[in-house]
Amino acid sequence: MKPQEYPATVQELIARLKRMPGVGSRGAERFALWFLQHGRNDARALAAALQGAVDAVSSCPECGFFAENGALCTACDDPTRDSSLFCVVEQPTDVLPIERCGTFRGLYHCLGGKISPLDGIMPEDLSVQRLLERVRNHPGCEVILAVGSDVEGEATALYLAEQLATLPCRVSRIAQGMPAGAGLGHADAITLMRALEGRRGL
Amino acid sequence: MKPQEYPATVQELIARLKRMPGVGSRGAERFALWFLQHGRNDARALAAALQGAVDAVSSCPECGFFAENGALCTACDDPTRDSSLFCVVEQPTDVLPIERCGTFRGLYHCLGGKISPLDGIMPEDLSVQRLLERVRNHPGCEVILAVGSDVEGEATALYLAEQLATLPCRVSRIAQGMPAGAGLGHADAITLMRALEGRRGL
Repeated sequence: MKPQEYPATVQELIARLKRMPGVGSRGAERFALWFLQHGRNDARALAAALQGAVDAVSSCPECGFFAENGALCTACDDPTRDSSLFCVVEQPTDVLPIERCGTFRGLYHCLGGKISPLDGIMPEDLSVQRLLERVRNHPGCEVILAVGSDVEGEATALYLAEQLATLPCRVSRIAQGMPAGAGLGHADAITLMRALEGRRGL
Repeated sequence: MKPQEYPATVQELIARLKRMPGVGSRGAERFALWFLQHGRNDARALAAALQGAVDAVSSCPECGFFAENGALCTACDDPTRDSSLFCVVEQPTDVLPIERCGTFRGLYHCLGGKISPLDGIMPEDLSVQRLLERVRNHPGCEVILAVGSDVEGEATALYLAEQLATLPCRVSRIAQGMPAGAGLGHADAITLMRALEGRRGL
């Protein structure tokens, strides 16, 4: 007796959905059955959207954020932004969290990662030369290093500060300290140490 | 100043992913960025799989389970299955949980729902006539009503039992009682009541 199973196209769909991050067998099956039972039009629309996005989306040639068809991204294409202020982040996905805090009006620069010799990621694998070039083209600018506060992020910030030291720019690093709304009891020792080091006069 | 935003095709992809059940804004954004950063081939393959499944998948004309291109499903197409045993379930998605328990070797019948006047679902909206026809074609068969044990499921089981009463078949209902591995302390009153009613001699 052959066991009752989903048709081959459904099994293929489940396998493909399961590749998505954080989606397991049960979740993939649930999605697939939802598409077949309630969402056939949604399935067609999602297929078109996936194809459209991977065909059109490129990296902004200036900053490395997401853009379309080789054009500039919204920020680099906006003449009203402050082009004397660069915010350097690791990944394109770090841009929108900063943008959403609503206080930054400058331009971004996505490195494409952080220096991590253990993972084989060296400075030349990152978009560092392009950053230096942009800084040279905007003498007197400020470069805010908004890379992560882990070991690799600190190493990347130090490396970039060295590279930028001879260029006509100021270099700053985003503050490290207590996250908003957190009690001291929940903070780890390194966070507290950095919060003390970075104290400001009132 | 225009806020930095994802390109239009990425926003469309996020909106489409968000339509999936249980996927919110953050989850959809995470999936979309994963497809763009690490899974462009996965995106193309998923698009093809979605299109392939919605184009090919149909209902089995015998039992209502998933099948392809109007053909019979695996179970209905299998002559080694016991065609004198029908397991009646509400939805096609109820078939595989039963199949996976490994003891059922008969055929299935998917009603397509359960009688629920409040939701406007009446017996004529379900695949009841097709079930009666199948039973008439297999005199002496047993019909196992494996619909849910909620109020609508019970109403559906009673209705089907009435309809099947005059046909040459036996009708049974799956047992209700304690789920495997559960302690008495966690059982609700109705489950315990039904477990007592359904007690079996040892």
